[in-house]
Amino acid sequence: MTKSFVVGVDLGATKILAAVVSPKGKILSEVKRPTPTETDKVVTRLVKTVRRAIKEAGVPAKKVVAVGVGAPAPVDPETGFLYHATNIPALNDFPLGERLREALGRPVFVDNDVNVGTVGEHAWGAGRGARDMVGIFVGTGTGGGVIVDGRLRHGFRNGAGEVGHMIVGYRGMADEPVCGCGNPGCLEAYASRTAIERDIRAAIAAGRETVVTELMGERDRITSGVLARALERQDPLVTEVLGRVTTYLTLLVASIVNFFDPQVIVIGGGVTEALGERLVGPVRENAPRWYLQKKDAERIRIVAAELGDYAGVLGAATIARQRLRKR
Amino acid sequence: MTKSFVVGVDLGATKILAAVVSPKGKILSEVKRPTPTETDKVVTRLVKTVRRAIKEAGVPAKKVVAVGVGAPAPVDPETGFLYHATNIPALNDFPLGERLREALGRPVFVDNDVNVGTVGEHAWGAGRGARDMVGIFVGTGTGGGVIVDGRLRHGFRNGAGEVGHMIVGYRGMADEPVCGCGNPGCLEAYASRTAIERDIRAAIAAGRETVVTELMGERDRITSGVLARALERQDPLVTEVLGRVTTYLTLLVASIVNFFDPQVIVIGGGVTEALGERLVGPVRENAPRWYLQKKDAERIRIVAAELGDYAGVLGAATIARQRLRKR
Repeated sequence: MTKSFVVGVDLGATKILAAVVSPKGKILSEVKRPTPTETDKVVTRLVKTVRRAIKEAGVPAKKVVAVGVGAPAPVDPETGFLYHATNIPALNDFPLGERLREALGRPVFVDNDVNVGTVGEHAWGAGRGARDMVGIFVGTGTGGGVIVDGRLRHGFRNGAGEVGHMIVGYRGMADEPVCGCGNPGCLEAYASRTAIERDIRAAIAAGRETVVTELMGERDRITSGVLARALERQDPLVTEVLGRVTTYLTLLVASIVNFFDPQVIVIGGGVTEALGERLVGPVRENAPRWYLQKKDAERIRIVAAELGDYAGVLGAATIARQRLRKR
Repeated sequence: MTKSFVVGVDLGATKILAAVVSPKGKILSEVKRPTPTETDKVVTRLVKTVRRAIKEAGVPAKKVVAVGVGAPAPVDPETGFLYHATNIPALNDFPLGERLREALGRPVFVDNDVNVGTVGEHAWGAGRGARDMVGIFVGTGTGGGVIVDGRLRHGFRNGAGEVGHMIVGYRGMADEPVCGCGNPGCLEAYASRTAIERDIRAAIAAGRETVVTELMGERDRITSGVLARALERQDPLVTEVLGRVTTYLTLLVASIVNFFDPQVIVIGGGVTEALGERLVGPVRENAPRWYLQKKDAERIRIVAAELGDYAGVLGAATIARQRLRKR
């Protein structure tokens, strides 16, 4: 087969990013557009964005053999059907894969955005060359993905990789932190931007002083950028809250190692991008203490994600290529 | 190849069980002997027990093509080297595989006893036919094993399957339960015979009444049998303590499902054998509430182990056969 290209699409709640990607992971073109809120418009916009990216790539359109899409929802990877799409309600219970295949006249493969990001980091980022890898993405919520023997694991019901809902901190008490999923004890109830914001706001409400109030200004959210600047200014409250976050991330990493013993754990997501080694460093340092098997503990690499916003398009492109080959 | 046989050996801290096993998992002979305490004697006894089992099987010795051993210690599965063998100190840092190969003149494959039990349940017991399975064995401690795509997973450093040291109940407080491994929050600190005994003894010391005192009689341990009889008599303290055990096992199962989404979870071990559905039933009933992905939740089977004491010899035989084929 002569050299072929694929399009990777990162479909977000607010923006669509499409890129034409070479077999060696080189991005030949990228096009970014806002995500519309109506169902039909989302599909039309996706199609146009993909076509535009192909046009700008400067390669013959017939050499672009498949399209991969990462979507912010649970996805049936066989069909590309989206369900429970609370982050992108226009596409709730929607056959996105089918519609895009019809409109684009090419094979289209859809998967969950965090799974896609994990594949991106494995193929082209911090997990390159690892046989097994786990991705942990700490953002507004916390998600992840699992690579086994070089391939993304979906699990028996496409339910694998939900590291944010591994239970690490159940206390069996009346007043413990509750996760967005409704249960106490989940990692996400302790280590996510939402949990961080909850704890900082509670402390402020209780009269605690912090530079966060000043840094937020007119914003109505405590962004990852605000957290980073507060840490730089050594704000005691933010330092304390983020210390708790790294503690629970350490417990998550150790649980994963004791269960699965992967070669590499990649930590990414918006909170991680803003804080970098201040988040990843303490986890790398402390996790081995919790491994039952101490031998070669340091050989398990715990590293920050490398691709940032490009994990999505590169991962989506990789998934398209892998599944095309598999068919 | 004509029909061949293998020997499965369950090497325990107190007894050795060896069985000759047919390709269809039929046990043709079994020999049980006490485990000596001196290194050389353990090896000699193992060799004699294997030979005796072959003799009693009534098949030509040359048709017995390999030996598999499950040992109560971390094992390097490539070489059969045992390390950190605190349960069987005579074999600490000992090349058991090499010694047995020399003495028996056959291929010998050694693995950790809980891994071996998981393989046994997968091949011949409650996990038959499942592509992916996780075994959880609740005994004095709590161990486990992971089957991926039909094969035992050892992990990057042979550290996989240590489900007892997945952290589910970290509280970040001064007085929380601590695991035998030294860390707070591990499953084993809440759900193991050791944890159960700790909690019952603490309650008795605090003046709580329970039939356990009477049922123990002269015993110095609260055995699984005592727990079963106390439950039958509806002892409030034991009911309460075992309720906590099933809660934490539920959290463990849910964490495993949210991370790995296996088809079957098999719960075994001494405590489970004594309590049966009184332990497994509540876990099966409550775990789905903690799954992030609710779709087809009931399709994940949560079942009691079926093979009891035979999981070890059958699993060891299966491992021997699989690895012989792989070479």
